[in-house]
Amino acid sequence: MIDCGEGTQVQLRKFKISFSKIKHIFISHLHGDHVFGLIGLISTFRLLGRTSDLHVHGPKGIKELIEVQLKLSQSRIDYQLIFNELTGDKTQVVFEDNNVIVSSIPLNHRIYTNGFLFSEKPSERRLNAPAARDAQIDKAYFSKLKQGFDVMNETGQLIKNEEVTFDAPKTKSYAYCSDTAFSPAIVPLIQGVDCLYHESTFLNVDEGLAIKTLHSTARQAAEIAKLANVSQLILGHFSSRYEVEDHFLLEANEVFEKTFLAENGKEFVW
Amino acid sequence: MIDCGEGTQVQLRKFKISFSKIKHIFISHLHGDHVFGLIGLISTFRLLGRTSDLHVHGPKGIKELIEVQLKLSQSRIDYQLIFNELTGDKTQVVFEDNNVIVSSIPLNHRIYTNGFLFSEKPSERRLNAPAARDAQIDKAYFSKLKQGFDVMNETGQLIKNEEVTFDAPKTKSYAYCSDTAFSPAIVPLIQGVDCLYHESTFLNVDEGLAIKTLHSTARQAAEIAKLANVSQLILGHFSSRYEVEDHFLLEANEVFEKTFLAENGKEFVW
Repeated sequence: MIDCGEGTQVQLRKFKISFSKIKHIFISHLHGDHVFGLIGLISTFRLLGRTSDLHVHGPKGIKELIEVQLKLSQSRIDYQLIFNELTGDKTQVVFEDNNVIVSSIPLNHRIYTNGFLFSEKPSERRLNAPAARDAQIDKAYFSKLKQGFDVMNETGQLIKNEEVTFDAPKTKSYAYCSDTAFSPAIVPLIQGVDCLYHESTFLNVDEGLAIKTLHSTARQAAEIAKLANVSQLILGHFSSRYEVEDHFLLEANEVFEKTFLAENGKEFVW
Repeated sequence: MIDCGEGTQVQLRKFKISFSKIKHIFISHLHGDHVFGLIGLISTFRLLGRTSDLHVHGPKGIKELIEVQLKLSQSRIDYQLIFNELTGDKTQVVFEDNNVIVSSIPLNHRIYTNGFLFSEKPSERRLNAPAARDAQIDKAYFSKLKQGFDVMNETGQLIKNEEVTFDAPKTKSYAYCSDTAFSPAIVPLIQGVDCLYHESTFLNVDEGLAIKTLHSTARQAAEIAKLANVSQLILGHFSSRYEVEDHFLLEANEVFEKTFLAENGKEFVW
């Protein structure tokens, strides 16, 4: 889960997202609309009898924020709550397992803020089982094949890997950038990602407000998407001053075509 | 406002309650379902440009709870935020102005908890203007009449107050008692109130759970209402383990007839 504003639990229930699937929470910054729902979610996990670890990655201070509230509400958490506090102003690996690597994207906002880049790791090649059988390859070599090696078959003949395997599924990448002023410095970090979420609080007509509050306009978000040559752009974090969100899409489209607007409960698959 | 769980702002908007009318917030205890929405509401007041003071009355610790969150989110509040931290285990006056007096009701829960008794102060008698004119009373005496005095008229005759005034409107009182185990000790404090809200987390069949968690059953809440001879009882804080809330009403009615169930957005007028 990325960020956790007040009422996140209600939205999770509304869109039937399993609470128990949440193992890592990445908090971009400590403004209320990104973090005020975290203490409630942590408390609810306790009420639901959670036993598995919960990892919270976020700016330095997040541990104090949660622990003070737990202390004052005299709440004992029965599962492990593990904080990973970020302080650096350069990109760093925030989390890594066998499938994914998550790194920080330093952003430019009124308070210390990081976006997050989620990059799938390449998985193994897929075995073409009938072809491998036909090529008389012993099963003992299958894991070597999945790793990309050529192998000897039972008659001592060298079999080319690509004759008996398929390419691994394409890895996917997702960059989340909110909240931030227009920051071309992030472009090298998100170059070519499959999907970029970029905040777009204002329209170009209010660029002055965006500069003042260290937010972005739809046009600026689209410029970042174009500079980074991403495959698609999702805009969100729209100021409530605008009644019609379509204008964000129109404005971004002038710079970057494959743009979509975030909305509650909407799923993006790519 | 009494208590402020997560999502209170959404409910205020849903039921069209003006944010700016909220000047005092009374927090019974620091469990999340009673306080986790407070920081968000305080932040929203700032965004809405609030300038008038906000008073927060609640258990010792409430100031730290809010101030840590304001500090970590680097939020500056432009209006006065005034905390009134309660520590006593006896009833005390929490707030008083010309119209109302609010006193604490020490409750018995797992954490330091107070209910609140809201008592309207008697207002002045209402002038029967035509009768006062007929009795030839000079206007200069009208304020004396409202205070209940007999006065001389222009011909030197003593006019009985009740002949030219009506009774003051009846004062109203409301007691809020949540969360608490069955506590007959509170009965003297809430004797004869017009309306008692009393928590009723469990049904009698789960009295063991109520005792263990320091909550009340519907029957226990009704017993308090009966002992205190209140005019009406509102039950709330139902455990989500029960699918049908009507059972709370049936159970309470066996002990105390004039019982109602709280529900979102419901108004009680008396």
